[in-house]
Formats: sequence, structure tokens, C-alpha cells
Amino acid sequence: MRPGATSSAGVQSDDAPFLKDGAPAPDIALAERLFIELRERTGEGRPDRGVTRASYGLGEQIAHDIVQREARRLGLLCAIDAACNLYISLDGREPGPAIIIGSHLDSVPKGGNFDGAAGVLVGLAVAAGFVRAGQRPARDLIVFGIRAEESTWFGASYIGSRAAFGKLTGTELDTVARTSDRVLLGAAIASAGGDPVALHAGRPHLDAARIAAFIEPHIEQGPVLVGEGRALGIVTGIRGSFRYRHARCDGQYSHSGATPRSHRNDAVLATAHLAVALDGLWKQHGAAGHDLSVTFGQFATDREQAAFSKVAGRVDFSIDVRSEDPATLDLVREDLLRTVAGLELEFGVKFSLGEETGSQPAHMDKALIAQLSDVAQVQGVDARPMPCGAGHDAAVFAQNGVPTAMIFIRNRNGSHNPHEAMEIEDFARAAELLAAFCHAGPKTPRTP
Amino acid sequence: MRPGATSSAGVQSDDAPFLKDGAPAPDIALAERLFIELRERTGEGRPDRGVTRASYGLGEQIAHDIVQREARRLGLLCAIDAACNLYISLDGREPGPAIIIGSHLDSVPKGGNFDGAAGVLVGLAVAAGFVRAGQRPARDLIVFGIRAEESTWFGASYIGSRAAFGKLTGTELDTVARTSDRVLLGAAIASAGGDPVALHAGRPHLDAARIAAFIEPHIEQGPVLVGEGRALGIVTGIRGSFRYRHARCDGQYSHSGATPRSHRNDAVLATAHLAVALDGLWKQHGAAGHDLSVTFGQFATDREQAAFSKVAGRVDFSIDVRSEDPATLDLVREDLLRTVAGLELEFGVKFSLGEETGSQPAHMDKALIAQLSDVAQVQGVDARPMPCGAGHDAAVFAQNGVPTAMIFIRNRNGSHNPHEAMEIEDFARAAELLAAFCHAGPKTPRTP
Repeated sequence: MRPGATSSAGVQSDDAPFLKDGAPAPDIALAERLFIELRERTGEGRPDRGVTRASYGLGEQIAHDIVQREARRLGLLCAIDAACNLYISLDGREPGPAIIIGSHLDSVPKGGNFDGAAGVLVGLAVAAGFVRAGQRPARDLIVFGIRAEESTWFGASYIGSRAAFGKLTGTELDTVARTSDRVLLGAAIASAGGDPVALHAGRPHLDAARIAAFIEPHIEQGPVLVGEGRALGIVTGIRGSFRYRHARCDGQYSHSGATPRSHRNDAVLATAHLAVALDGLWKQHGAAGHDLSVTFGQFATDREQAAFSKVAGRVDFSIDVRSEDPATLDLVREDLLRTVAGLELEFGVKFSLGEETGSQPAHMDKALIAQLSDVAQVQGVDARPMPCGAGHDAAVFAQNGVPTAMIFIRNRNGSHNPHEAMEIEDFARAAELLAAFCHAGPKTPRTP
Repeated sequence: MRPGATSSAGVQSDDAPFLKDGAPAPDIALAERLFIELRERTGEGRPDRGVTRASYGLGEQIAHDIVQREARRLGLLCAIDAACNLYISLDGREPGPAIIIGSHLDSVPKGGNFDGAAGVLVGLAVAAGFVRAGQRPARDLIVFGIRAEESTWFGASYIGSRAAFGKLTGTELDTVARTSDRVLLGAAIASAGGDPVALHAGRPHLDAARIAAFIEPHIEQGPVLVGEGRALGIVTGIRGSFRYRHARCDGQYSHSGATPRSHRNDAVLATAHLAVALDGLWKQHGAAGHDLSVTFGQFATDREQAAFSKVAGRVDFSIDVRSEDPATLDLVREDLLRTVAGLELEFGVKFSLGEETGSQPAHMDKALIAQLSDVAQVQGVDARPMPCGAGHDAAVFAQNGVPTAMIFIRNRNGSHNPHEAMEIEDFARAAELLAAFCHAGPKTPRTP
């Protein structure tokens, strides 16, 4: 179908532009308008205070309402599952598993306008492009507006996407409470119009076998694309991690002038050596081409007892180690424990790493990555492969056996803060890439 | 004079024991009794609360009164200067500059019973030994009970000893206040019976030219003697220092998973590298036989902004560098500044070291150290030469041109706490060493 045809959703268009490969251009103006409306209606009243879209709270609901309203205006079919996730459907030309594009619509408190919402609006802009052009994507396209991704609200990750796969636990529904107001998760879902009873029963809304691809566009939360002058990244994998959030090193307080080096039990020096050793490990793994990041985000002597004239008797610190590769995580953990044991002997201190938490890496689909890279090349978009260091709903899809990919969109100033700064031109490149992908359809279709 | 003779102070004795070289044994029983009285009368009521002898406060006054009372009982001459320092005199056999033995009688709040007081009681035990034996030391012996050494009270160091040399400033007298009750130093001295007007005028009570030696016995504040199983140390020098009490490193907060190593500005890692580099410098200087200590006593990320999942944007820290040798201090400062500049480039951070404070090293008198070592050998006392890392009144004497030495007495658990633990046997070794020294007289007498 070309200009003048009637789309499956019944909207006619004769002036819709097309991309190089004949795919209908996404409706960027629509997305721009919705970003403004989102900012105005979920903002904290001042630009420097950002937006707040609490999971199952007012801001998130407003975002879902805005997106659903626009979808209905476009004549698209909207469905809501038991966890209040929003599914916007456009029929495809061919039968077979669907393509899902989406992300979450909640935000951290006083967060940025783009983290999450950009991924949903990419999907909506792509769908609107097809509608305006009177075209259909190769496969059924579902734009997915996911609930409750930000763990800051309920202290649990990926609530909406896990619920869509029937993987939310009864314990979570009945016991975890929203940090802002202590409302329990089940009650919050019910008050948003959801069905906690169905969620308790674990009935999935999504079936991995019927999904050809899940693609989550998301602003980059780091500085790589800005630094390299590229619009997009194609995520190779979502890093897994292991973390010691409450580690400590106990030494012994002593007089800085009267205690020789050999008699010290210096918690600062031992922990500094640990940080430097792990940085060295990072450099080694990096040189060998292994994905890794190591972060000592907290490192603090005691406010009361530590003094400039005392050898430090205690340091509290955190370690966050991430990698796409579980084998690398295991190697680093082994090295870390060996280093700790050595430093304990060398410095006469005692390390207590505390509880280890973490997550498994999620693998992005290689065929999907390859196809997206090809499409980017055709569209003339400079997209580089890169790891994703933060957790995303995409990990849930990958872990449930769905061929999954993520597109990073260049963004300044990190995320989770009011200063997120994505340019609409870069957003447009992501939407074009996915319009072309939807137009072509997945190259390695799953048999349903 | 031997048993049966009459001492200069008029006390007769016929059973006083003598040391190997014929010096009268010091009166250790007297010291023991006075330690008990000091603990009882200046204690905080419970052993684990220690003693409190505030500079120019009640506890210090009680200590001075006890020592003066015992001196008068022994028939010794007592004098008080304008700063209320106590001078207890015993005439010598020969004319010429005097020997002064002493230390301070104040303590930190809830401190230990031995820091300071032990040095005065060594002097008193030595003098009492001469008196009981009916003997005289080679030179005039002055037991010195010094006021206000602990800077915790007035935030100023060595008030009493500086006053004795006429070196207390009018500004200090009129403006510095006791931290516990905001009483000004001049007023506190006046209320203890001193003469702030005379101190303002800067009239010295002591004349360096008339002092052959000042020797300060003091408990060791570190663990070296305990570790080596030695009773005494002979101090080779009092370390000078340079300090950055309020240093900081500014980096940039960023996402721990999304920020590659090359894009980080990690304040923890940069500061950890600095600590490790300076520790390496310490090892190098130590291997080369240079006296040095380096301490990062405080090292803290921000309590609000730092998180386990963020690269740290700021660390506040302190550096305390000490050495007997000003040249070593200068070399380390140069190396430190060079290291800081390198780390700023490598890690993209900014170090602000803040105000540098510090002190010049004080040299102990080489001839005096040699003679004390010889006397220790004769007495069969295992005394090792060692640096002194903390400041003491001895530094004031050395800086005023007096041949000065310090004797460290083995002590467990450091100082400035209720758990100071000096054994009276080790105290006795120090007293015997100084009795023998006073009996022999200084080998390299100054001409008056």
C-alpha cells in the first residue's frame, strides 16, 4: 500500500513521507507533542524538579491515559492486562509472532521526562507512521506501555513486565509496600483498576512463543554516545551483577604519629588497596575484551571515631561489579575474595562483605542485533553495539525466552534526574530504525 | 655521702638502696602511692571513665597540689611561675646548668592516669631517692610540673612550657577559650593564681643557657615497646608534620552500570590511588631508613549523594604526614603534589587539599641520647632508640635551644584513653635510668 490506501485501522493518508526502504516514516511530531504533555502534566512545577510518575500512582496513570488516548485517536486497539500494562495493537501483513516495542511509563521521583517514556513513544510514533501511511507492518505490532519498572517505588524490579509473564509472586503482591505512602503492591494495582487475584493465580498475558521480537528503545544512561557523537546504540547484553551493598573493613584505631607501619591495622589503606586492585582487574579484563565495570560508590570512615590524627579503625563501603558475561562475574568474585584474604593478612584487618545481591546477565538476541545493525546501516544511522549496564524490562523478556533487543538513544546528563537531555532528532533516528524493522519484519521468524 | 649522711634537704636515711653505679635508687613506692591518689582524686568515678585534669581546672590543680605537697614533705624547694608551672629544686654537687626532669600534669577529658603525670613522678621519685639517701645529684635537679599541655582544652599546644620561656602570646591569653566552659586562657591562669600580666610582658622564667638538659619521661603512645618486649625507648626526635585536615576530591556522580571506565570521574578510585601511592612512598622511605608516617585517617563519600550504584562524585579526606626529618617532609610533599596532579589527569577529578598545617621536627640532643643509652646499658635496661610521633613539651625545650631528650615508657592500649596501662616496673626502669644520669651528671656540660 502506498499513499491513498486505507490502513488496517481505517485512517487514510496521502501525504505521509517514507523512509529509504519504503517504510512509512514515524510520526515524530506526535511524539514531540506527547513529551510536552507528559512533562506538563506529570512535572513537579519547576524544570529543575523534573517529573514524578509513581508506579501505580497518579503520574504513571496520567502517562498511560495520554498514550491510550492517542492510540484510540489513531484507531488502534488497546488492551489492559491484570497488572494494568497497556498493549496497543496494529495488525501485520503476515501471520506469525508479533513484534513488541515498548518500555515503562513510570519514573523515579523528580526524575527525567525520557527514561521509560521515550521507549513507548518510539513505538507509538512507529505505529502512527504506519497508520498515517495506510500501511501495515510485516507482523502484528504491539506498542507496550509497561507499569512499575522503577524499583525505587516498591523496592522490586520489573513488576509490570514480570506480571505480563505471570511471574509476579503472591508474596510481593501482599507484602511489598510503596515507599512513598506504604500502600501494598496488590492494593495499588487494584486501585489502578488491575486484578491482583488474577496475578496471584500467575496467569500470563504474554506468551513468549507468540512474540517474534521485543525491542526496548531507551535513553542511554551513560555518556558513551554523547562522547562518541553517535545517535544510537544497539545493546549487546544487559549486564548482570554482584553487589556487596553493606561491606565493611575493621582495623584498629591508633595514634597516627606513634604507630609504625608494621603495627597498623589501617582500614582505609586496606580498603583503598582493594579498590585499586579491583580497578587493576577491570583494566586487565578490559584489555582482554571482557565486559566489566567495578564501582566503589560508597567508602566512608566513621564520623565520630575517625580523626585526621588516628589510623582508621573502620571503613564502610559498597562494591558493585557488573558484566554481560557470567563467567567474568565469577572470575572477578574469585579474584576479589582472594584479594580480600591477602589484604587481611597484609594489613591485619578483617573484611566483612555482607550479603551478596545481584542479577544474571540477560542476552540480547544475536540475529535481532545483526538485523537491527543492518537496518541502521541502510537508514544511514550511526549505531554502535554496546553493553547495557542498568536493568531494564528487556531483561525479563530475554529471560522468558523472547528474542530481545534494546536501542539506546543518545542522552546527556545521565538518567533519573531532571536534567536528562535527549534530542528529538536522535529519538527520530530510533523510531526510523524500528519503522524500517517493522516494515521488513524479523528475518528469523519464530514458528508460532 | 652514703647511708647515714644528711642530704641537702635535711632528710636523713640509713636504709636507702643504691643502683649499680652508686646512684641512690629512686623512690618507686612514693610514685606508686601518688599514682593511686591521682587516680582516686581526679578520676571520673568509674575505671572505664578514666581521669580528667583540665588545663587550669580542678583536676590539674589537684595534681599540682599533690606533687607540691610531697615535695615539701621531702624538704624540697618549690617555686611557681606566672603560668602556675611547678618547679621543685634539689641542689647539685657541682655548679653549672641544671638538669630538668618533668612533663605535664593535665590530661585529656576521660583520659588515662599516666600520660603526663608519669614524667613528673619519675622526676619526683628520682629526687626523693637522692633525699632519702642523703645524696645530691651532680647538678641542680629541677622536677618540672608543667601546666596545660593537652591542646584539647584551649586548642593551643604547650601553653605551660611556652609560658616558662616567655613565649605565650597576648592574643592567646586574651582570646583562646577553654572548650569545656569558654573561660579565656588569661582568666583561667589568673583564677589558678597565675599572673597574666607578667605573661603578657613575655618575661621568661627559664633561661636555656642555665639548663644542661631537659628530659621528659612519657608513656609510649604507640605499640612498639610492647610489641618488642622492651621497657624503655630513647627518643631520637619529635616528628614534625604537614597535614591537610580538610582535603577533598571532586569527581562526577554517574551510573555505575552505564558509565565506562574511560568516562568516569571517580573520586573514590582517585583518592584510593592517592592513599596507595603515599603508602608506597612510605615503604620506599622506610626501606631507605628515613623516618616517616602517612595516615589517611578520614576518607568519606557523601552520606546523601553517594550510592552503591553510582560512581562517587566526591570524597572528603585527611592526610597526616610526619617525619623527624624536614627534608623527608619536603620530599613527600613534592611527591604528593606530583601524584595529585597525575591522578587529576588520569581520573578526571579535582583535588583540593585545603589549608596545610603542621609543625617543624624537634631534634633531641645527640650527646644526651648517647649518654642515656650508655647509662641504660650499665643499668641493664633494654632501651631502644625510636622516633616520637606526637607533640610534647620537650619540643618547646629543644626549640628554645635546650639539650633535650625523652624517655618512652612501655605502655599498652595507647594514650588519651582510660585504658592506658603502664607497669610500675617499667616506670621504675625509667626512674633508675634518670637517677643514674643525675648521679653522673651530663657528660657535655654547657658553660653557663
